[in-house]
Amino acid sequence: MGGVGPERLSLNTATVREQWGLAQCIDGCARHGIGGIAPWRDKLHEMGVAAAAKAIREAGLTVSGLCRGGWFTATGTLGQEVIDDNRRAVDEAAEIGAACLVMVVGGLPDGSRDLSRAHALVEEGLARTLDHAREVGMPVAIEPLHPMYAADRACVNTMRQALDICDRLGEGIGVACDVYHVWWDPDLYDQIRRAGRERLLAFHVCDWLVPTRDLLTDRGMMGDGVIDIPRIRAAVESEGFGGLNEVEIFSALNWWRRDPDEVLATMVERGRISC
Amino acid sequence: MGGVGPERLSLNTATVREQWGLAQCIDGCARHGIGGIAPWRDKLHEMGVAAAAKAIREAGLTVSGLCRGGWFTATGTLGQEVIDDNRRAVDEAAEIGAACLVMVVGGLPDGSRDLSRAHALVEEGLARTLDHAREVGMPVAIEPLHPMYAADRACVNTMRQALDICDRLGEGIGVACDVYHVWWDPDLYDQIRRAGRERLLAFHVCDWLVPTRDLLTDRGMMGDGVIDIPRIRAAVESEGFGGLNEVEIFSALNWWRRDPDEVLATMVERGRISC
Repeated sequence: MGGVGPERLSLNTATVREQWGLAQCIDGCARHGIGGIAPWRDKLHEMGVAAAAKAIREAGLTVSGLCRGGWFTATGTLGQEVIDDNRRAVDEAAEIGAACLVMVVGGLPDGSRDLSRAHALVEEGLARTLDHAREVGMPVAIEPLHPMYAADRACVNTMRQALDICDRLGEGIGVACDVYHVWWDPDLYDQIRRAGRERLLAFHVCDWLVPTRDLLTDRGMMGDGVIDIPRIRAAVESEGFGGLNEVEIFSALNWWRRDPDEVLATMVERGRISC
Repeated sequence: MGGVGPERLSLNTATVREQWGLAQCIDGCARHGIGGIAPWRDKLHEMGVAAAAKAIREAGLTVSGLCRGGWFTATGTLGQEVIDDNRRAVDEAAEIGAACLVMVVGGLPDGSRDLSRAHALVEEGLARTLDHAREVGMPVAIEPLHPMYAADRACVNTMRQALDICDRLGEGIGVACDVYHVWWDPDLYDQIRRAGRERLLAFHVCDWLVPTRDLLTDRGMMGDGVIDIPRIRAAVESEGFGGLNEVEIFSALNWWRRDPDEVLATMVERGRISC
């Protein structure tokens, strides 16, 4: 496989979210030769969308995605507020030239055990966001999250489930394949083939640590865990996916405590040997 | 749905594993009117298999399962030791009159990222165990574990995957459906139907807490989390499953610290209202 050079990596701002704002992330990418960036919206808003778009453009960075739209389920009904917020997310993604808007769809409504209802809310929310996204020409990427997040973050938890939704909703929607969420799935490679180039909109990398000490914030740097990243990357690329390898690491116990330049240098090194 | 009476519950000894040995569990079940028990092998060995079989019989308890066989992958080859140990587990299950031997199949071999290899080891191990289990007439139940255990406990993580294995291996093998591991799966109800009466060998209940503070030992009492247990139970029972509702709660932070009689009383109460 041979790994990837830094120009094939993208920095998801979550990886250094405790250390850097977006402007610093953009400078850091330029300094380390990293080819792209994927901002979270809080960081984007802090910097200002127009200023960020300009700085990203001037730094010559690709935007592998905007994180995140979605979160359709929290109140148990699909309110105008969440629809409007997703509409704004689409527009922001367009303004910064993102390859896609990544959707974390939301888990069970507060106090609910009704997963079917949550699934229905998610699909309706995606459909309504997609109406606007198609007008703007912004691809919408459903990110299936690991099943351990089904209750409180996203009730779309496998590639199969995400692609079933895509099939029902039609054009302009696909998946963000994050190895952390899907590596365990015996169905993964079949579903990557099913997705094909048209539905594969983003590819995220990090690693699954053994042991994992926290459900949310103990993700590993590529190479420090058990995920066969080269195999998954090869499968995605053999479908024609040509996007960047977006590095998104939630790590309260390790990487969020380090010098961010060390984090980026490590990420570049591991891109070469562990992706 | 209406919940279930204590005679329809089974106590998995893991639920009070820090407080009670098997003899105390047997007495506790009798005292609380609980219909069955499911020992873990360490507790069974401590008491002695023959003594346990006699005490369980005299208490009139059903044995909903023996936990656990499996663990085929640890060394990366299927050694005679693990084959022999599973053979012994089959014999122990038969000796105590268990409804099935529950299999936790094992995760990735130490230092490996090769999930396909792990899957192959598991299937070979199950096949070889099944040879003996069929002779003895002991049903083998694959327990798909939650995907968050794929690396270090079990690389069979969905009902679909378990049933695919069952289809390849033939008679005498089925699944243990534990709501904690499968509740999130959009494919769950289809796979329960697919399993049918013949492949549904055990039904385990507890609850998924939000937040979950530990990957292994923060399971909830029925009713304290987000799992729609009555719906899953109804699906299993509509296939003709007539076994007990086995309560298996790993809870270092809560139930393992309580008076075990309080745990059993709560379990009985929650059986009535939250199952």
